[in-house]
Amino acid sequence: MLIIGEKINGTLKKVGQAVLNRDAAFIQDLARRQAEAGADYIDVNAGTPATREPEDLVWLVETVQAVVDVPLCLDSANPEALKAALERTTRPPLINSISGEESRLTGILPLIPGRTAGVIAMLLDDSGMPKGVEDRLRVAHKIIERTRAAGVPDEQVYVDPLVMAVATQQNGALVALETMRTLRAQYPKIRFSVGLSNVSFGLPVRSLINQAFLTLALYEGLDAAIMDPLDRGVMSMLLATEVVLGRDRFCRRYTGAYRAGKLCKAQ
Amino acid sequence: MLIIGEKINGTLKKVGQAVLNRDAAFIQDLARRQAEAGADYIDVNAGTPATREPEDLVWLVETVQAVVDVPLCLDSANPEALKAALERTTRPPLINSISGEESRLTGILPLIPGRTAGVIAMLLDDSGMPKGVEDRLRVAHKIIERTRAAGVPDEQVYVDPLVMAVATQQNGALVALETMRTLRAQYPKIRFSVGLSNVSFGLPVRSLINQAFLTLALYEGLDAAIMDPLDRGVMSMLLATEVVLGRDRFCRRYTGAYRAGKLCKAQ
Repeated sequence: MLIIGEKINGTLKKVGQAVLNRDAAFIQDLARRQAEAGADYIDVNAGTPATREPEDLVWLVETVQAVVDVPLCLDSANPEALKAALERTTRPPLINSISGEESRLTGILPLIPGRTAGVIAMLLDDSGMPKGVEDRLRVAHKIIERTRAAGVPDEQVYVDPLVMAVATQQNGALVALETMRTLRAQYPKIRFSVGLSNVSFGLPVRSLINQAFLTLALYEGLDAAIMDPLDRGVMSMLLATEVVLGRDRFCRRYTGAYRAGKLCKAQ
Repeated sequence: MLIIGEKINGTLKKVGQAVLNRDAAFIQDLARRQAEAGADYIDVNAGTPATREPEDLVWLVETVQAVVDVPLCLDSANPEALKAALERTTRPPLINSISGEESRLTGILPLIPGRTAGVIAMLLDDSGMPKGVEDRLRVAHKIIERTRAAGVPDEQVYVDPLVMAVATQQNGALVALETMRTLRAQYPKIRFSVGLSNVSFGLPVRSLINQAFLTLALYEGLDAAIMDPLDRGVMSMLLATEVVLGRDRFCRRYTGAYRAGKLCKAQ
Protein backbone atom coordinates (compact mmCIF):
# COMPACT_ATOMS: atom_id res chain seq x y z
CA MET A 1 0.00 0.00 0.00
CA LEU A 2 1.20 3.51 -0.82
CA ILE A 3 1.65 5.70 2.23
CA ILE A 4 1.00 9.35 1.39
CA GLY A 5 2.41 11.46 4.22
CA GLU A 6 -0.17 14.05 5.24
CA LYS A 7 1.77 16.38 7.50
CA ILE A 8 2.75 19.20 5.10
CA ASN A 9 -0.71 20.70 4.98
CA GLY A 10 -1.02 24.46 5.06
CA THR A 11 -4.52 24.33 6.50
CA LEU A 12 -2.83 23.25 9.75
CA LYS A 13 -1.86 26.43 11.59
CA LYS A 14 1.85 25.78 12.14
CA VAL A 15 2.38 24.56 8.60
CA GLY A 16 0.44 27.50 7.15
CA GLN A 17 2.67 29.89 9.10
CA ALA A 18 5.77 28.09 7.84
CA VAL A 19 4.55 28.50 4.24
CA LEU A 20 3.86 32.22 4.70
CA ASN A 21 7.22 32.76 6.43
CA ARG A 22 9.16 30.62 3.95
CA ASP A 23 10.40 28.55 6.91
CA ALA A 24 12.17 25.91 4.83
CA ALA A 25 13.74 24.18 7.85
CA PHE A 26 10.33 23.47 9.39
CA ILE A 27 8.91 22.06 6.14
CA GLN A 28 12.03 20.06 5.35
CA ASP A 29 12.04 18.49 8.81
CA LEU A 30 8.46 17.29 8.23
CA ALA A 31 9.44 15.96 4.81
CA ARG A 32 12.51 14.10 6.09
CA ARG A 33 10.77 12.55 9.06
CA GLN A 34 7.90 11.28 6.93
CA ALA A 35 10.25 9.86 4.31
CA GLU A 36 12.34 8.12 6.97
CA ALA A 37 9.19 6.68 8.54
CA GLY A 38 8.24 5.06 5.25
CA ALA A 39 6.15 7.54 3.26
CA ASP A 40 5.95 6.61 -0.44
CA TYR A 41 4.64 10.06 -1.38
CA ILE A 42 4.73 13.38 0.49
CA ASP A 43 1.53 15.39 0.24
CA VAL A 44 2.07 19.14 -0.17
CA ASN A 45 -0.81 21.51 0.43
CA ALA A 46 -0.13 25.26 0.58
CA GLY A 47 -3.48 26.12 2.10
CA THR A 48 -3.17 29.73 1.01
CA PRO A 49 -5.55 31.97 -1.00
CA ALA A 50 -5.88 31.16 -4.71
CA THR A 51 -3.99 34.25 -5.83
CA ARG A 52 -0.77 33.28 -4.09
CA GLU A 53 -1.25 29.51 -4.06
CA PRO A 54 0.71 28.81 -7.31
CA GLU A 55 3.78 30.56 -5.93
CA ASP A 56 3.43 28.92 -2.49
CA LEU A 57 2.95 25.44 -3.92
CA VAL A 58 5.99 25.83 -6.15
CA TRP A 59 7.99 26.91 -3.11
CA LEU A 60 6.78 23.81 -1.21
CA VAL A 61 7.67 21.52 -4.12
CA GLU A 62 11.19 22.90 -4.40
CA THR A 63 11.71 23.02 -0.65
CA VAL A 64 10.69 19.40 -0.15
CA GLN A 65 12.48 18.06 -3.23
CA ALA A 66 15.70 19.65 -1.99
CA VAL A 67 15.86 17.16 0.91
CA VAL A 68 13.98 13.97 -0.01
CA ASP A 69 13.82 11.69 -3.04
CA VAL A 70 10.25 10.61 -2.34
CA PRO A 71 7.77 11.77 -5.01
CA LEU A 72 5.11 14.32 -4.13
CA CYS A 73 1.35 14.36 -3.96
CA LEU A 74 0.25 17.80 -5.15
CA ASP A 75 -2.72 18.75 -3.01
CA SER A 76 -4.78 21.54 -4.48
CA ALA A 77 -8.08 22.24 -6.22
CA ASN A 78 -6.50 25.10 -8.14
CA PRO A 79 -5.49 24.24 -11.73
CA GLU A 80 -3.08 27.18 -11.89
CA ALA A 81 -1.26 26.05 -8.77
CA LEU A 82 -1.14 22.46 -10.02
CA LYS A 83 0.17 23.52 -13.43
CA ALA A 84 2.95 25.61 -11.90
CA ALA A 85 3.89 22.87 -9.44
CA LEU A 86 3.85 20.17 -12.12
CA GLU A 87 6.55 22.06 -14.01
CA ARG A 88 8.87 21.78 -11.02
CA THR A 89 8.36 18.18 -9.90
CA THR A 90 11.34 15.96 -10.61
CA ARG A 91 9.39 12.71 -10.28
CA PRO A 92 5.82 12.06 -11.52
CA PRO A 93 3.55 13.19 -8.68
CA LEU A 94 0.09 12.13 -7.63
CA ILE A 95 -2.59 14.81 -7.91
CA ASN A 96 -4.92 15.32 -4.96
CA SER A 97 -7.63 15.65 -6.19
CA ILE A 98 -10.42 15.63 -8.69
CA SER A 99 -14.06 14.82 -7.87
CA GLY A 100 -17.29 14.67 -9.79
CA GLU A 101 -17.49 18.49 -9.55
CA GLU A 102 -17.50 19.87 -13.06
CA SER A 103 -14.98 22.61 -12.29
CA ARG A 104 -12.43 20.08 -11.08
CA LEU A 105 -13.00 17.70 -13.98
CA THR A 106 -12.63 20.49 -16.49
CA GLY A 107 -9.75 22.26 -14.79
CA ILE A 108 -7.62 19.43 -13.44
CA LEU A 109 -8.28 16.32 -15.51
CA PRO A 110 -6.35 17.56 -18.59
CA LEU A 111 -3.21 17.84 -16.42
CA ILE A 112 -3.14 14.17 -15.49
CA PRO A 113 -2.27 11.96 -18.49
CA GLY A 114 1.39 11.45 -19.18
CA ARG A 115 2.74 13.86 -16.59
CA THR A 116 1.64 12.33 -13.30
CA ALA A 117 1.59 9.02 -11.44
CA GLY A 118 -2.16 9.29 -11.11
CA VAL A 119 -4.99 11.20 -9.52
CA ILE A 120 -7.12 10.85 -6.41
CA ALA A 121 -10.82 11.09 -7.21
CA MET A 122 -13.22 11.93 -4.38
CA LEU A 123 -16.73 10.56 -4.72
CA LEU A 124 -18.63 13.82 -4.40
CA ASP A 125 -20.02 16.12 -7.06
CA ASP A 126 -21.84 19.39 -7.52
CA SER A 127 -24.88 18.01 -5.70
CA GLY A 128 -22.75 17.90 -2.51
CA MET A 129 -21.68 15.17 -0.13
CA PRO A 130 -22.95 11.72 -1.13
CA LYS A 131 -25.49 10.10 1.15
CA GLY A 132 -24.82 6.39 0.88
CA VAL A 133 -23.35 3.70 -1.33
CA GLU A 134 -25.65 4.37 -4.30
CA ASP A 135 -24.75 8.04 -4.43
CA ARG A 136 -21.05 7.19 -4.33
CA LEU A 137 -21.37 4.62 -7.12
CA ARG A 138 -23.22 7.13 -9.30
CA VAL A 139 -20.41 9.67 -8.89
CA ALA A 140 -17.75 6.99 -9.45
CA HIS A 141 -19.31 5.90 -12.74
CA LYS A 142 -19.36 9.51 -13.91
CA ILE A 143 -15.75 10.18 -12.89
CA ILE A 144 -14.40 6.98 -14.44
CA GLU A 145 -16.19 7.73 -17.68
CA ARG A 146 -14.43 11.11 -17.72
CA THR A 147 -10.96 9.83 -16.69
CA ARG A 148 -11.13 7.20 -19.42
CA ALA A 149 -12.21 9.79 -21.97
CA ALA A 150 -9.28 11.96 -20.89
CA GLY A 151 -6.86 9.09 -21.47
CA VAL A 152 -6.07 8.31 -17.83
CA PRO A 153 -5.63 4.54 -17.38
CA ASP A 154 -7.79 3.03 -14.60
CA GLU A 155 -4.61 1.98 -12.73
CA GLN A 156 -3.85 5.67 -12.21
CA VAL A 157 -7.22 6.61 -10.76
CA TYR A 158 -7.31 6.38 -6.96
CA VAL A 159 -10.95 6.50 -5.96
CA ASP A 160 -11.54 7.93 -2.48
CA PRO A 161 -14.82 6.45 -1.18
CA LEU A 162 -15.20 9.34 1.30
CA VAL A 163 -15.31 7.66 4.66
CA MET A 164 -17.46 9.63 7.10
CA ALA A 165 -16.66 10.10 10.79
CA VAL A 166 -18.15 7.14 12.65
CA ALA A 167 -18.74 9.37 15.67
CA THR A 168 -21.50 11.16 13.79
CA GLN A 169 -22.45 8.60 11.13
CA GLN A 170 -22.59 5.13 12.60
CA ASN A 171 -22.27 3.31 9.25
CA GLY A 172 -19.73 5.79 7.83
CA ALA A 173 -16.96 3.22 7.53
CA LEU A 174 -19.21 0.41 6.29
CA VAL A 175 -20.52 2.61 3.46
CA ALA A 176 -16.95 3.31 2.31
CA LEU A 177 -16.01 -0.40 2.50
CA GLU A 178 -19.09 -1.50 0.57
CA THR A 179 -18.42 1.18 -2.05
CA MET A 180 -14.89 -0.17 -2.52
CA ARG A 181 -16.06 -3.77 -2.74
CA THR A 182 -18.70 -2.94 -5.33
CA LEU A 183 -16.44 -0.78 -7.47
CA ARG A 184 -13.59 -3.29 -7.41
CA ALA A 185 -15.91 -5.92 -8.88
CA GLN A 186 -17.01 -3.50 -11.62
CA TYR A 187 -13.62 -1.90 -12.35
CA PRO A 188 -10.89 -4.41 -11.47
CA LYS A 189 -8.04 -2.02 -12.29
CA ILE A 190 -9.29 1.05 -10.47
CA ARG A 191 -7.34 1.85 -7.30
CA PHE A 192 -8.53 3.10 -3.94
CA SER A 193 -7.23 5.70 -1.55
CA VAL A 194 -8.62 7.09 1.70
CA GLY A 195 -7.98 10.06 3.92
CA LEU A 196 -7.46 7.77 6.88
CA SER A 197 -8.03 10.04 9.83
CA ASN A 198 -11.47 11.25 8.71
CA VAL A 199 -13.05 8.10 10.12
CA SER A 200 -12.00 8.92 13.70
CA PHE A 201 -12.94 12.60 13.84
CA GLY A 202 -14.46 13.51 17.21
CA LEU A 203 -13.30 10.38 19.07
CA PRO A 204 -10.54 9.87 21.64
CA VAL A 205 -7.40 7.83 20.85
CA ARG A 206 -8.05 8.36 17.16
CA SER A 207 -5.15 6.13 16.16
CA LEU A 208 -7.04 3.03 17.33
CA ILE A 209 -10.08 3.84 15.19
CA ASN A 210 -7.79 4.65 12.24
CA GLN A 211 -6.05 1.29 12.71
CA ALA A 212 -9.27 -0.72 12.75
CA PHE A 213 -10.51 1.02 9.61
CA LEU A 214 -7.17 0.70 7.82
CA THR A 215 -7.14 -3.06 8.46
CA LEU A 216 -10.63 -3.47 6.99
CA ALA A 217 -9.90 -1.19 4.03
CA LEU A 218 -6.75 -3.19 3.21
CA TYR A 219 -8.87 -6.35 3.24
CA GLU A 220 -11.21 -4.68 0.71
CA GLY A 221 -8.28 -3.77 -1.51
CA LEU A 222 -7.06 -0.34 -0.41
CA ASP A 223 -4.08 0.80 -2.53
CA ALA A 224 -3.12 4.08 -0.85
CA ALA A 225 -3.83 6.15 2.23
CA ILE A 226 -3.22 9.77 3.08
CA MET A 227 -2.07 9.31 6.64
CA ASP A 228 0.49 10.15 9.29
CA PRO A 229 3.53 7.90 8.80
CA LEU A 230 4.84 9.11 12.17
CA ASP A 231 1.94 7.34 13.94
CA ARG A 232 3.69 4.18 15.13
CA GLY A 233 0.40 2.54 16.04
CA VAL A 234 -1.01 2.85 12.52
CA MET A 235 2.30 1.90 10.90
CA SER A 236 2.58 -1.21 13.10
CA MET A 237 -0.99 -2.26 12.38
CA LEU A 238 -0.38 -1.78 8.66
CA LEU A 239 2.57 -4.18 8.83
CA ALA A 240 0.63 -6.68 10.95
CA THR A 241 -2.36 -6.56 8.59
CA GLU A 242 -0.16 -7.25 5.58
CA VAL A 243 1.13 -10.36 7.36
CA VAL A 244 -2.41 -11.51 8.17
CA LEU A 245 -3.51 -10.90 4.56
CA GLY A 246 -0.62 -13.05 3.31
CA ARG A 247 1.04 -10.09 1.57
CA ASP A 248 4.33 -10.10 3.49
CA ARG A 249 6.32 -13.06 2.18
CA PHE A 250 8.02 -14.94 5.03
CA CYS A 251 6.86 -12.02 7.24
CA ARG A 252 10.07 -10.29 6.26
CA ARG A 253 8.86 -6.69 6.47
CA TYR A 254 7.13 -7.35 9.80
CA THR A 255 10.06 -9.08 11.46
CA GLY A 256 12.45 -6.51 9.95
CA ALA A 257 10.42 -3.70 11.51
CA TYR A 258 10.47 -5.57 14.82
CA ARG A 259 14.25 -5.89 14.75
CA ALA A 260 14.52 -2.20 13.88
CA GLY A 261 12.46 -1.36 16.99
CA LYS A 262 9.63 0.06 14.89
CA LEU A 263 6.73 -2.07 16.09
CA CYS A 264 4.71 -0.49 18.83
CA LYS A 265 3.91 -2.72 21.76
CA ALA A 266 0.21 -1.90 21.48
CA GLN A 267 -0.09 -1.38 25.21
CA MET B 1 -18.72 -10.55 20.67
CA LEU B 2 -18.26 -13.07 23.46
CA ILE B 3 -14.85 -12.95 25.10
CA ILE B 4 -13.82 -16.37 26.38
CA GLY B 5 -10.92 -15.87 28.79
CA GLU B 6 -8.18 -18.37 27.97
CA LYS B 7 -5.84 -18.11 30.92
CA ILE B 8 -6.97 -21.02 33.11
CA ASN B 9 -5.41 -23.67 30.92
CA GLY B 10 -3.64 -26.57 32.61
CA THR B 11 -1.46 -27.20 29.59
CA LEU B 12 0.38 -24.01 30.61
CA LYS B 13 3.02 -24.99 33.14
CA LYS B 14 2.11 -22.66 36.02
CA VAL B 15 -1.60 -23.35 35.70
CA GLY B 16 -1.01 -27.10 35.50
CA GLN B 17 1.01 -26.93 38.72
CA ALA B 18 -1.75 -24.94 40.39
CA VAL B 19 -4.28 -27.60 39.42
CA LEU B 20 -2.10 -30.43 40.76
CA ASN B 21 -1.38 -28.51 43.98
CA ARG B 22 -4.99 -27.37 44.42
CA ASP B 23 -3.72 -23.79 44.54
CA ALA B 24 -7.13 -22.14 44.63
CA ALA B 25 -5.74 -18.64 45.20
CA PHE B 26 -3.73 -18.77 41.97
CA ILE B 27 -6.69 -19.99 39.90
CA GLN B 28 -9.13 -17.58 41.51
CA ASP B 29 -6.84 -14.64 40.83
CA LEU B 30 -6.79 -15.55 37.11
CA ALA B 31 -10.57 -15.91 37.15
CA ARG B 32 -11.18 -12.57 38.88
CA ARG B 33 -8.78 -10.63 36.69
CA GLN B 34 -10.28 -12.01 33.49
CA ALA B 35 -13.82 -11.31 34.68
CA GLU B 36 -12.91 -7.76 35.68
CA ALA B 37 -11.25 -7.21 32.29
CA GLY B 38 -14.48 -8.11 30.52
CA ALA B 39 -14.50 -11.88 29.93
CA ASP B 40 -18.01 -13.17 29.13
CA TYR B 41 -16.96 -16.78 29.76
CA ILE B 42 -13.98 -18.23 31.62
CA ASP B 43 -12.39 -21.23 29.91
CA VAL B 44 -11.30 -23.99 32.30
CA ASN B 45 -8.92 -26.68 31.09
CA ALA B 46 -7.42 -29.09 33.62
CA GLY B 47 -4.76 -30.37 31.24
CA THR B 48 -4.26 -33.48 33.36
CA PRO B 49 -4.31 -37.21 32.40
CA ALA B 50 -7.73 -38.66 31.54
CA THR B 51 -7.95 -40.74 34.72
CA ARG B 52 -7.81 -37.74 37.02
CA GLU B 53 -9.24 -35.11 34.66
CA PRO B 54 -12.88 -35.45 35.86
CA GLU B 55 -11.88 -34.72 39.44
CA ASP B 56 -9.53 -31.88 38.43
CA LEU B 57 -12.08 -30.23 36.15
CA VAL B 58 -14.73 -30.39 38.87
CA TRP B 59 -12.27 -28.75 41.25
CA LEU B 60 -11.60 -26.00 38.70
CA VAL B 61 -15.33 -25.41 38.16
CA GLU B 62 -16.01 -25.09 41.88
CA THR B 63 -12.90 -23.02 42.52
CA VAL B 64 -13.72 -20.50 39.81
CA GLN B 65 -17.46 -20.34 40.52
CA ALA B 66 -16.66 -19.51 44.14
CA VAL B 67 -15.30 -16.11 43.12
CA VAL B 68 -16.89 -14.99 39.84
CA ASP B 69 -20.40 -14.94 38.40
CA VAL B 70 -19.20 -15.30 34.82
CA PRO B 71 -20.26 -18.60 33.19
CA LEU B 72 -17.64 -21.17 32.26
CA CYS B 73 -16.37 -22.72 29.07
CA LEU B 74 -15.59 -26.35 29.86
CA ASP B 75 -12.49 -27.20 27.88
CA SER B 76 -11.95 -30.92 27.51
CA ALA B 77 -12.16 -33.74 24.98
CA ASN B 78 -13.07 -36.19 27.74
CA PRO B 79 -16.79 -36.97 28.02
CA GLU B 80 -16.40 -38.22 31.60
CA ALA B 81 -14.75 -34.99 32.69
CA LEU B 82 -17.38 -32.91 30.91
CA LYS B 83 -20.22 -34.92 32.44
CA ALA B 84 -18.84 -34.51 35.94
CA ALA B 85 -18.18 -30.78 35.42
CA LEU B 86 -21.62 -30.17 33.90
CA GLU B 87 -23.23 -31.41 37.11
CA ARG B 88 -21.49 -28.67 39.07
CA THR B 89 -21.89 -25.64 36.83
CA THR B 90 -24.32 -23.09 38.20
CA ARG B 91 -24.84 -21.32 34.84
CA PRO B 92 -25.13 -23.00 31.42
CA PRO B 93 -21.55 -23.35 30.15
CA LEU B 94 -20.08 -23.48 26.69
CA ILE B 95 -18.39 -26.76 25.77
CA ASN B 96 -14.95 -26.60 24.16
CA SER B 97 -15.08 -28.63 21.97
CA ILE B 98 -16.39 -31.10 19.47
CA SER B 99 -14.98 -31.62 15.98
CA GLY B 100 -15.72 -33.89 13.05
CA GLU B 101 -13.83 -36.68 14.86
CA GLU B 102 -16.25 -39.52 15.45
CA SER B 103 -15.17 -40.09 19.04
CA ARG B 104 -15.97 -36.49 19.97
CA LEU B 105 -19.28 -36.47 18.15
CA THR B 106 -20.36 -39.69 19.82
CA GLY B 107 -18.99 -38.90 23.24
CA ILE B 108 -19.67 -35.19 23.66
CA LEU B 109 -22.57 -34.22 21.42
CA PRO B 110 -25.25 -35.92 23.57
CA LEU B 111 -24.20 -33.69 26.49
CA ILE B 112 -24.98 -30.43 24.69
CA PRO B 113 -28.74 -29.98 24.18
CA GLY B 114 -30.64 -28.40 27.04
CA ARG B 115 -27.78 -28.27 29.54
CA THR B 116 -25.31 -25.90 27.91
CA ALA B 117 -25.10 -22.51 26.23
CA GLY B 118 -23.60 -24.15 23.17
CA VAL B 119 -20.60 -25.93 21.80
CA ILE B 120 -17.46 -24.97 19.93
CA ALA B 121 -16.94 -27.14 16.84
CA MET B 122 -13.46 -27.30 15.34
CA LEU B 123 -13.30 -27.97 11.61
CA LEU B 124 -11.08 -31.03 11.67
CA ASP B 125 -11.97 -34.69 11.58
CA ASP B 126 -10.45 -38.17 11.69
CA SER B 127 -8.58 -37.49 8.45
CA GLY B 128 -6.52 -34.83 10.32
CA MET B 129 -5.95 -31.14 9.93
CA PRO B 130 -7.89 -29.62 7.03
CA LYS B 131 -5.87 -28.33 4.10
CA GLY B 132 -7.89 -25.43 2.74
CA VAL B 133 -11.35 -23.95 2.54
CA GLU B 134 -12.94 -26.95 0.80
CA ASP B 135 -11.76 -29.37 3.46
CA ARG B 136 -13.12 -27.12 6.18
CA LEU B 137 -16.49 -26.78 4.47
CA ARG B 138 -16.76 -30.55 4.10
CA VAL B 139 -16.15 -31.04 7.84
CA ALA B 140 -18.56 -28.19 8.71
CA HIS B 141 -21.38 -29.77 6.69
CA LYS B 142 -20.83 -33.07 8.49
CA ILE B 143 -20.74 -31.48 11.94
CA ILE B 144 -23.82 -29.33 11.39
CA GLU B 145 -25.75 -32.34 10.12
CA ARG B 146 -24.85 -34.10 13.37
CA THR B 147 -25.54 -31.15 15.71
CA ARG B 148 -28.95 -30.68 14.10
CA ALA B 149 -29.72 -34.38 14.41
CA ALA B 150 -28.73 -34.19 18.08
CA GLY B 151 -31.17 -31.33 18.66
CA VAL B 152 -28.62 -28.53 19.06
CA PRO B 153 -29.97 -25.30 17.51
CA ASP B 154 -27.60 -23.70 14.99
CA GLU B 155 -27.38 -20.58 17.23
CA GLN B 156 -25.59 -22.72 19.82
CA VAL B 157 -22.96 -24.11 17.46
CA TYR B 158 -19.77 -21.99 17.42
CA VAL B 159 -17.80 -23.14 14.40
CA ASP B 160 -14.03 -22.65 14.77
CA PRO B 161 -12.58 -22.28 11.25
CA LEU B 162 -9.11 -23.30 12.53
CA VAL B 163 -6.93 -20.35 11.68
CA MET B 164 -3.37 -21.47 10.96
CA ALA B 165 -0.25 -19.58 12.03
CA VAL B 166 0.53 -17.06 9.29
CA ALA B 167 4.25 -17.41 10.06
CA THR B 168 4.20 -20.89 8.56
CA GLN B 169 1.12 -20.76 6.32
CA GLN B 170 0.94 -17.49 4.46
CA ASN B 171 -2.79 -17.72 3.67
CA GLY B 172 -3.70 -19.22 7.07
CA ALA B 173 -5.87 -16.27 8.10
CA LEU B 174 -7.45 -15.79 4.67
CA VAL B 175 -8.55 -19.44 4.57
CA ALA B 176 -10.29 -19.02 7.94
CA LEU B 177 -11.99 -15.78 6.85
CA GLU B 178 -13.20 -17.28 3.57
CA THR B 179 -14.50 -20.33 5.43
CA MET B 180 -16.52 -18.07 7.73
CA ARG B 181 -17.89 -16.00 4.85
CA THR B 182 -18.97 -19.08 2.91
CA LEU B 183 -20.55 -20.84 5.89
CA ARG B 184 -22.41 -17.73 7.04
CA ALA B 185 -24.10 -17.52 3.63
CA GLN B 186 -25.10 -21.20 3.84
CA TYR B 187 -26.05 -21.34 7.54
CA PRO B 188 -27.16 -17.85 8.60
CA LYS B 189 -27.69 -18.84 12.25
CA ILE B 190 -24.45 -20.69 12.83
CA ARG B 191 -21.99 -18.82 15.04
CA PHE B 192 -18.23 -18.51 14.79
CA SER B 193 -15.46 -18.66 17.35
CA VAL B 194 -11.68 -18.61 17.00
CA GLY B 195 -8.70 -19.41 19.18
CA LEU B 196 -7.29 -15.95 18.55
CA SER B 197 -3.62 -16.37 19.35
CA ASN B 198 -3.07 -19.31 16.99
CA VAL B 199 -2.73 -16.90 14.07
CA SER B 200 0.37 -15.22 15.53
CA PHE B 201 2.33 -18.29 16.62
CA GLY B 202 6.04 -17.87 15.93
CA LEU B 203 5.96 -14.09 15.38
CA PRO B 204 7.13 -11.19 17.56
CA VAL B 205 4.66 -8.75 19.17
CA ARG B 206 1.92 -11.33 18.74
CA SER B 207 -0.73 -8.96 20.03
CA LEU B 208 -0.50 -6.86 16.85
CA ILE B 209 -1.08 -9.85 14.61
CA ASN B 210 -3.94 -11.00 16.85
CA GLN B 211 -5.47 -7.52 16.62
CA ALA B 212 -5.35 -7.38 12.82
CA PHE B 213 -6.93 -10.82 12.55
CA LEU B 214 -9.59 -10.07 15.18
CA THR B 215 -10.65 -6.95 13.28
CA LEU B 216 -11.05 -8.89 10.03
CA ALA B 217 -12.82 -11.80 11.72
CA LEU B 218 -15.31 -9.41 13.35
CA TYR B 219 -16.01 -7.95 9.91
CA GLU B 220 -16.76 -11.49 8.67
CA GLY B 221 -19.14 -12.05 11.57
CA LEU B 222 -17.10 -13.51 14.42
CA ASP B 223 -19.30 -14.19 17.48
CA ALA B 224 -16.76 -15.35 20.06
CA ALA B 225 -13.03 -15.61 20.64
CA ILE B 226 -10.95 -17.61 23.05
CA MET B 227 -8.43 -14.93 23.95
CA ASP B 228 -6.56 -13.10 26.68
CA PRO B 229 -8.84 -10.39 28.09
CA LEU B 230 -5.82 -8.98 29.95
CA ASP B 231 -4.21 -8.00 26.63
CA ARG B 232 -5.06 -4.28 26.54
CA GLY B 233 -4.01 -3.99 22.91
CA VAL B 234 -6.47 -6.64 21.74
CA MET B 235 -9.24 -5.37 24.01
CA SER B 236 -8.77 -1.79 22.73
CA MET B 237 -8.78 -2.90 19.11
CA LEU B 238 -11.94 -4.93 19.74
CA LEU B 239 -13.68 -1.78 21.02
CA ALA B 240 -12.35 0.32 18.14
CA THR B 241 -13.45 -2.24 15.57
CA GLU B 242 -16.96 -2.35 16.97
CA VAL B 243 -17.14 1.42 16.54
CA VAL B 244 -15.89 1.19 12.95
CA LEU B 245 -18.39 -1.59 12.18
CA GLY B 246 -21.23 0.58 13.50
CA ARG B 247 -21.95 -1.81 16.38
CA ASP B 248 -21.27 0.60 19.25
CA ARG B 249 -24.23 2.95 19.38
CA PHE B 250 -23.11 6.54 19.97
CA CYS B 251 -19.62 5.02 20.56
CA ARG B 252 -20.68 4.59 24.18
CA ARG B 253 -18.62 1.52 25.01
CA TYR B 254 -15.55 2.98 23.34
CA THR B 255 -15.73 6.38 25.01
CA GLY B 256 -16.62 4.72 28.31
CA ALA B 257 -13.50 2.56 28.10
CA TYR B 258 -11.49 5.68 27.31
CA ARG B 259 -12.80 7.49 30.36
CA ALA B 260 -12.05 4.41 32.48
CA GLY B 261 -8.44 4.53 31.26
CA LYS B 262 -8.79 1.17 29.51
CA LEU B 263 -7.80 2.15 25.96
CA CYS B 264 -4.19 1.54 25.15
CA LYS B 265 -2.39 4.37 23.43
CA ALA B 266 -1.21 2.04 20.67
CA GLN B 267 2.28 3.47 20.80
